[in-house]
Amino acid sequence: MLSGNKSSNVVINDKSFNTETEPPQLLKQERENVPFTVRDITHYLNGSVEQTEILEYAMQRVERDPLFNNDAFYDLTKDEIRELCFKRVANLAKYLLDSRKDGTDFRRYFDAVSVADPAAVTRLGVYTGLFMNSIEGSGTPEQIKFWYSLGANEYKRFYGCFGMTELGHGSNVAGMETEAVFDSETDEFIINTPNLAATKWWIGGAAHSATHCVCFARMIIKGKDYGMKSFVVPLRDVDSFNLLPGIAIGDIGKKMGRDGVDNGWIQFTKVRIPRQFLLMRYTKVDRSGNVTEPPLNQLAYGALVSARVNIAVESFNTARRFITIAIRYAAIRRQFASVPGQPETKILDYPLHQRRLLPRLALTYAMNAVSMELRDNYDRINNSLLNVNQNDKAALKKAVNDTKEIFALSAGVKAFTTWATADIIDECRQACGGHGYSGYNGFGQGYADWAVQCTWDGDNNVLVLSMGRALIQAACDAKRSKPVGEPFEYLSRHGQLKSSKLGSRKIDSPEVIVEAWEAAAANALISSSEIYEEELAKVKGNVAQAMEAASQQRFESARIHTRLYHVTAFFNRIKNSSSSGIKPVLTDLAILFGLWAIEKDAALFLTSGFLSAQDIKNITKLVDVYNLKIRNYAIPLTDAFNLSDYYINSPIGNYDGDVYKNYFNKVVRRNPGYDAKAPYYESVAKPFIQRSDEPKLDLSVLDE
Amino acid sequence: MLSGNKSSNVVINDKSFNTETEPPQLLKQERENVPFTVRDITHYLNGSVEQTEILEYAMQRVERDPLFNNDAFYDLTKDEIRELCFKRVANLAKYLLDSRKDGTDFRRYFDAVSVADPAAVTRLGVYTGLFMNSIEGSGTPEQIKFWYSLGANEYKRFYGCFGMTELGHGSNVAGMETEAVFDSETDEFIINTPNLAATKWWIGGAAHSATHCVCFARMIIKGKDYGMKSFVVPLRDVDSFNLLPGIAIGDIGKKMGRDGVDNGWIQFTKVRIPRQFLLMRYTKVDRSGNVTEPPLNQLAYGALVSARVNIAVESFNTARRFITIAIRYAAIRRQFASVPGQPETKILDYPLHQRRLLPRLALTYAMNAVSMELRDNYDRINNSLLNVNQNDKAALKKAVNDTKEIFALSAGVKAFTTWATADIIDECRQACGGHGYSGYNGFGQGYADWAVQCTWDGDNNVLVLSMGRALIQAACDAKRSKPVGEPFEYLSRHGQLKSSKLGSRKIDSPEVIVEAWEAAAANALISSSEIYEEELAKVKGNVAQAMEAASQQRFESARIHTRLYHVTAFFNRIKNSSSSGIKPVLTDLAILFGLWAIEKDAALFLTSGFLSAQDIKNITKLVDVYNLKIRNYAIPLTDAFNLSDYYINSPIGNYDGDVYKNYFNKVVRRNPGYDAKAPYYESVAKPFIQRSDEPKLDLSVLDE
Repeated sequence: MLSGNKSSNVVINDKSFNTETEPPQLLKQERENVPFTVRDITHYLNGSVEQTEILEYAMQRVERDPLFNNDAFYDLTKDEIRELCFKRVANLAKYLLDSRKDGTDFRRYFDAVSVADPAAVTRLGVYTGLFMNSIEGSGTPEQIKFWYSLGANEYKRFYGCFGMTELGHGSNVAGMETEAVFDSETDEFIINTPNLAATKWWIGGAAHSATHCVCFARMIIKGKDYGMKSFVVPLRDVDSFNLLPGIAIGDIGKKMGRDGVDNGWIQFTKVRIPRQFLLMRYTKVDRSGNVTEPPLNQLAYGALVSARVNIAVESFNTARRFITIAIRYAAIRRQFASVPGQPETKILDYPLHQRRLLPRLALTYAMNAVSMELRDNYDRINNSLLNVNQNDKAALKKAVNDTKEIFALSAGVKAFTTWATADIIDECRQACGGHGYSGYNGFGQGYADWAVQCTWDGDNNVLVLSMGRALIQAACDAKRSKPVGEPFEYLSRHGQLKSSKLGSRKIDSPEVIVEAWEAAAANALISSSEIYEEELAKVKGNVAQAMEAASQQRFESARIHTRLYHVTAFFNRIKNSSSSGIKPVLTDLAILFGLWAIEKDAALFLTSGFLSAQDIKNITKLVDVYNLKIRNYAIPLTDAFNLSDYYINSPIGNYDGDVYKNYFNKVVRRNPGYDAKAPYYESVAKPFIQRSDEPKLDLSVLDE
Repeated sequence: MLSGNKSSNVVINDKSFNTETEPPQLLKQERENVPFTVRDITHYLNGSVEQTEILEYAMQRVERDPLFNNDAFYDLTKDEIRELCFKRVANLAKYLLDSRKDGTDFRRYFDAVSVADPAAVTRLGVYTGLFMNSIEGSGTPEQIKFWYSLGANEYKRFYGCFGMTELGHGSNVAGMETEAVFDSETDEFIINTPNLAATKWWIGGAAHSATHCVCFARMIIKGKDYGMKSFVVPLRDVDSFNLLPGIAIGDIGKKMGRDGVDNGWIQFTKVRIPRQFLLMRYTKVDRSGNVTEPPLNQLAYGALVSARVNIAVESFNTARRFITIAIRYAAIRRQFASVPGQPETKILDYPLHQRRLLPRLALTYAMNAVSMELRDNYDRINNSLLNVNQNDKAALKKAVNDTKEIFALSAGVKAFTTWATADIIDECRQACGGHGYSGYNGFGQGYADWAVQCTWDGDNNVLVLSMGRALIQAACDAKRSKPVGEPFEYLSRHGQLKSSKLGSRKIDSPEVIVEAWEAAAANALISSSEIYEEELAKVKGNVAQAMEAASQQRFESARIHTRLYHVTAFFNRIKNSSSSGIKPVLTDLAILFGLWAIEKDAALFLTSGFLSAQDIKNITKLVDVYNLKIRNYAIPLTDAFNLSDYYINSPIGNYDGDVYKNYFNKVVRRNPGYDAKAPYYESVAKPFIQRSDEPKLDLSVLDE
């Protein structure tokens, strides 16, 4: 065997010089003469030098933890990965507890682990995120204290899961069928699964881990249905881990990805819990079954916004990994010679390959800007919501309005960043050719793990439509010169934007690109609102029906508004957060992103008249020009993502660029055994290969 | 536990009536009052009543074969599926041998198995397709007879694999580095792997199955390099199955999908084979090392075209499975009530959901038309190529030209149908919400298995660019009024097409839609050829450089031409092959496809002036209208694909529509064991959950 080890005795002839020794030299060259400091871009991406340090500490801690060794990751069976995942969850939980002591943000550990093992983040995140946010967001201070006292917040003698979705009910929370009937005699709620479709389904942590569940159930008191409320329901006896009476739990089994998560189903057969296990921060029920409803129902959904923000951040975290792999590979892979007899061309030098990867590199940077802005805003709004004086009506209203706004915005960002990341993983895989299909280069597992992000925590299409509803309402307001929220401010300038044209200006400037997208978004939203109002007139003011009829317009409005948000957030972040040395290259990246996005959506700009057919042709050329500019710094721009080989976990994407040796060695290490005979050779292969001729029956003897 | 069995003692209350008992009734209703005969559409899809019968026989045979039972399919580990796959290959081989006796087309077995277990088709197909086509297409009659005599064509004491790609070389066959040096003394070729990157890589069948390999190697005789030729190289001793001297083989290991295939790597260390193992139908080498080259080199690549045609057929075969699942699920799934208090709406009745699924249903029908037409043409052309008298120069030239034309056309069709199928699987998965992510509903495995189709047998992007080259050349010819091939005939009408406009005509008619797409394609190709010629002038006639600079235009040309081909093939097939009862619904489907495609590519039609901005708005409305028409027959149109529940292999997509029970039962059957304690409870979970407080160290004693 020719080994991938550098020390091996390999015959090298002239022609093969390149593939044997060249790759690492090529990546080295790509890192020479870079006119900016890569480290500065890393700080820009993370938010500050301090944030980089905190993140690096978390990432190193995970990388150096033997339990997080990922060499065998892609070869594990579902059962193996389930077990390993729980070990990792146990360690990760300890890291989170440590982060409370040293005052760092525990989410940095999630940032790290979401790249290394997304299932581990999910498995613990359901507890620390969905379950704990429910307790803390929907429980009274006394309730929070009570559940803390049982160990909920120490992850000890306690493990929480989140029981929302049912077999027959997903996105429509209000349609869930699990019941919680109040028994005033015993002061208990009776939790019951009335039919098969009401089985709690997909509950992460239920199959193997959870002692308690925050269960969404329809609260029924004295025959009156109060709709969905959340209850804490004990599932297992903490000491024996046996299921409690009335609880049936099963394993959901094999999934497309994230098999480390023990998703389960739960059926409740008249399970009794104390009345006080209803989380009563908003809706309160007293001993006599009297109900006090909160003034504003939406507040109970704060945990969902937090999850969406985290997913947007994870979109960037994940996309950067795969774009790094594909760009590094493209910088060393040669294919076809432009001039016969000359060395083959590096695929990153092909214009079409640049078009596949470099705008997606720019998109990844745009997702960074969007997700960081969203995270900062969420932290701010959530703090004011938690700390608002409930008696200060004005402050409360402002907090609720802000929450509604970020609820809508986060919906679109969650949807379009998760779709973008899925697209990036898939395009990057294809850009690596056959090697992208190897299990060891991470794309297959990465895509399978990622795909669910488009569905959970609000199905993307449902989220987009809900955002579209808010946008159409804002456009209707703007048309009537009513005030609109800050994210929709451009709508108030529609009168001026609708007639704006590129004219003789150059399109490749930040101001013009932002104006182009503002005009596109304003036109799309106003035009959608007109179609909506036509429909509304047809159905005599039935808003639900008219919104339904305008669903394609809602979708498009949300898509285009979110695109605009990406463009502006990216330029703003460069303006506000980057040092002067890195501004030029980041601005080129943002311009590339904006132009590429315009080209993809050319019809929008043609329809509105902002661009002419000739302008579109010019933009196609400009995209090529900006691709060439970015191509020169493609490797440093991926290095800036600051992912060690551990997090890359793809031998064709390692930092050193020694692609063929790293990849070959990984394959051989994971698949030793050179006799190359199948384990099933004797039992299966040999009987087929060596089979004898079928006997020829002499039927004539039967005729005698 | 509430069981999914109909006989179980389930408490049903009024509100939950729907999810418990309604789904199968809903699908039943969808099948009532259908104004056409579903069976007629099945015959249309298959080509004829006879073809339906042949296909059904093959499908039944596979379905009833106990080895092909797929209940456990999604839970198998890589090692288990490898072994099962070889068992299936052995049986499938016997079916193929039987098909020779009864005269049926063996490809019907591949059609069946490609839906049930794509890896099994690949594993055997590499042998019966790539290996055997090489022998038969590139070998002399004597060589074919020789390899037959060893058992090659009986799949007995013989197993062939196809050694083309290398670790460092994929799409560029001419760049491979494996060498075959002629030793005139011994009359042998010496096959050698000169360096690591020249390792044969991804070779299906190499790791566990193959006794022989058709190996692509650079033929070197007396120091002269004749480029890539194909050689038969024995790999293993047939009796012992041990590797032969000089052969090193390893297992490629885990892949994104198709783990049933034993892909391997091969290194040759100066392996000697008789000169006669060079396949000499075209290039001949005599005892003295004299070389006779063929007049037309392209002929050796016939095996690749055949593979592409099969992949196009497989695209349809696979897409129909997933679109069936998603549409059946959408017809019973309810979500959100339009009117509060009323039953929730079936998701198939939402306009946006219709937009996601029904144009893709139409696209699936379009892929059927395209792939059937391509298959028929290939069979015709391949027959004439194999039977042409090599001395009849005119006939030979025609056969070669036809081959070149189908080589280009099949490239684009392969690329765009495989991408379309990947998109359909993914969109259908998302359309099934969380349940699309369950391993048991087939989307995850289906996507992972499918994804490689975009990469192998010619990377899609490379294929598209090669087709784009042919199209730009054709456009250059057409501009100069030179004759163009039949598939590009519309280019000769460019003068008239370039000024054509919709005007006051209705867009939703076959003739207008075809004209719109012909105009779009002609404009795109002519405009691309102009950009190409500008570039050509800049680089002083260097065709390679100019083609490179116009790569985005080549890509777009190929994309749009292939779209046109889909539109015309679909309408033509309806005209020529459908009975009168089914013509109306098929025509509606084809119109929906054409309009949806126009809407997606609106910029093309706006730029050329064929459509106005207002026309585009109307088309958006028309897409909704046609979606509504098709929605009424969506279930019969998927039933027509004629896939039994075995091939669907997705409990949410079964024919009876009893989604929740079928799905629940499958999950429980595959994941029994209701104590719901993890297998790793004692070793992993308990130590974490029950951990004691960390000891508080009294450091003050150290200060004493």
